[in-house]
Amino acid sequence: MPDHSDRLARLRRRLRGRSMYVSALPNIRYLTGFTGSAGHLLVAPDETTLFTDGRYRLQASEQTQGIDVEIASGDSRPALAKRVVALRLRRLSFEANRLDYDTYAFLDGSLPICRLDPLRSVVETMRMRKSPAEIEAIRSSVELNSKAFEDVCARIGPGWTESLVAAELEFAMRRLGAEGAAFPTIVASGTHGALPHAEPRARQLREKSLVVVDQGAILDGYCSDMTRMIALGHPDETQTKLFHAVLEAQVAAIDAICPGVECRTVDNRARQVLRMTTVEGIRLDTKFSHSTGHGVGLEIHEGPRVAPRQRRRLETGMVVTVEPGVYLEGLAGARIEDVVVVTETGCEVLTRTSRELRVL
Amino acid sequence: MPDHSDRLARLRRRLRGRSMYVSALPNIRYLTGFTGSAGHLLVAPDETTLFTDGRYRLQASEQTQGIDVEIASGDSRPALAKRVVALRLRRLSFEANRLDYDTYAFLDGSLPICRLDPLRSVVETMRMRKSPAEIEAIRSSVELNSKAFEDVCARIGPGWTESLVAAELEFAMRRLGAEGAAFPTIVASGTHGALPHAEPRARQLREKSLVVVDQGAILDGYCSDMTRMIALGHPDETQTKLFHAVLEAQVAAIDAICPGVECRTVDNRARQVLRMTTVEGIRLDTKFSHSTGHGVGLEIHEGPRVAPRQRRRLETGMVVTVEPGVYLEGLAGARIEDVVVVTETGCEVLTRTSRELRVL
Repeated sequence: MPDHSDRLARLRRRLRGRSMYVSALPNIRYLTGFTGSAGHLLVAPDETTLFTDGRYRLQASEQTQGIDVEIASGDSRPALAKRVVALRLRRLSFEANRLDYDTYAFLDGSLPICRLDPLRSVVETMRMRKSPAEIEAIRSSVELNSKAFEDVCARIGPGWTESLVAAELEFAMRRLGAEGAAFPTIVASGTHGALPHAEPRARQLREKSLVVVDQGAILDGYCSDMTRMIALGHPDETQTKLFHAVLEAQVAAIDAICPGVECRTVDNRARQVLRMTTVEGIRLDTKFSHSTGHGVGLEIHEGPRVAPRQRRRLETGMVVTVEPGVYLEGLAGARIEDVVVVTETGCEVLTRTSRELRVL
Repeated sequence: MPDHSDRLARLRRRLRGRSMYVSALPNIRYLTGFTGSAGHLLVAPDETTLFTDGRYRLQASEQTQGIDVEIASGDSRPALAKRVVALRLRRLSFEANRLDYDTYAFLDGSLPICRLDPLRSVVETMRMRKSPAEIEAIRSSVELNSKAFEDVCARIGPGWTESLVAAELEFAMRRLGAEGAAFPTIVASGTHGALPHAEPRARQLREKSLVVVDQGAILDGYCSDMTRMIALGHPDETQTKLFHAVLEAQVAAIDAICPGVECRTVDNRARQVLRMTTVEGIRLDTKFSHSTGHGVGLEIHEGPRVAPRQRRRLETGMVVTVEPGVYLEGLAGARIEDVVVVTETGCEVLTRTSRELRVL
């Protein structure tokens, strides 16, 4: 059971006497435990109030402790504004990257004596370093995700389509106890694998082609994320070369992870490896079109970003994906992805599924 | 194949010479056909440009016709701002209820000679009236959703948990060709059914209890939405009374649907019926804690809202859900929901699954 009052206390220390309107639902969940799909949180120096609607009356009182809950009929933002007025707040920070313009304009119009302060990623920054309990929650989600992969791999047979593999994976996650998939599962074979965000098609997996499988589960609110490569029949020389270059890049990036290292350094390590390999006359680093990784937790994409130019230093307790990929248009794609937690001495790879090419 | 150029032409007529920045992805999909997870659309009087990133280079060019596509490395908003400057636009409308404050502030800072005009629901209003092709797409999604329900109902056996029923339903949707579920499937039995937005639990369906099953699929981008009631064993008198009151309210609301009628009238019809029934001393209309329905299409919740105080009049081609529900804390909940299209002479119920209580 996470200690929400401790998290609220840490947020208040960061706010130094200011009040804050928290609008992003994952941030509200992190701070209070409330998992409803509509809510607004006011963190003032001497009170914390969650505003939500009638659908969540029971749930809000069951899930939260030590904070006030106010139920509105329908939109609960006017109730929040009213409370800000009643508290005579002169300044209210808000989540600039999470709030829609209309709500901002509504508050601006409703709060004549209160200055609205755009604030960025305050709660998100707190969320980057995971507590031991959160790391265990992510570990369980990662293990469940791996089990779903093994369960389906053991059954893939002739005639299976990309869509069927994706459906079976998500079903397996659910049967294993997941709330659902953390994102739409990607199953992309052959040339379709050259689209980093391919949607699964109602098309059979092709013999002698590489298949990218990118899947994640949500368990007790925490996300997992893993990419593995499957081959139907033994891969040819080009496919093998592509796969091994990506694997080497992934391992090198993981090796670079330890507290104090800059995110861009980890990212660059993967690119350096890919720079040394050429497939069909193409240097592979030129076809690595996204960043090396991202934080993962209550959201599938959170901080820190493991990307070029990111000078943020890794800290103990951060949990990130490491997922270099190479996309050769008209030919094939390859990506390998693990979830890694930064430890005092380096890192621990939470994903225990073998990274080797799974030949079916 | 929807005619995107016709939709863009209709938008331009509404804009009367103004330019618009479309940020909501379902609106971008509606106007251009692009289904990627990141993109920004500029609709200027003489050009339409989609800005997206490298992951979607191939997909954006394959899915769109007759518009320009500009690929940025990473965030594509600066490219959009640059284009607005190059076109010397003096005024740019934006989607006030869909844009985050940060993007607004970025554009405001990047476009010194351009006035930003908050605009609400322009594309959403266009989307409310569906074309014949869209109605057929929704019909197919509704039929698939019903098939998934029948498939799973035929198999529910002793020991099935709420979570398993939900997982089986979503798996059945996928196997039938859906892209996925339109929202997290609700399976709530007994007292849990008294939460309108209950999350399925790892708990077996109880004998002699009512079960609320609320499910929707996405097929070719279009959503369906249906709620049916299941009972394990024959229901008692109270359960039967509750069920029939909700059924009667739902039928009455559907009967009220025709072009020209105000949404609040349809909503009120359901409430009137519930007002006449009392269960355990409680008048049922006092426990109908949400609105009667919502539009459905590319998004699971869109306009029009079928709710109290909504004076908007229904028009031919609008597609809405009708889903009154009653939630008796500590006792049970009941909801019945169909998707209905407004026709010239009244309405057609697209959902063909029997509304009767399914006794298993």
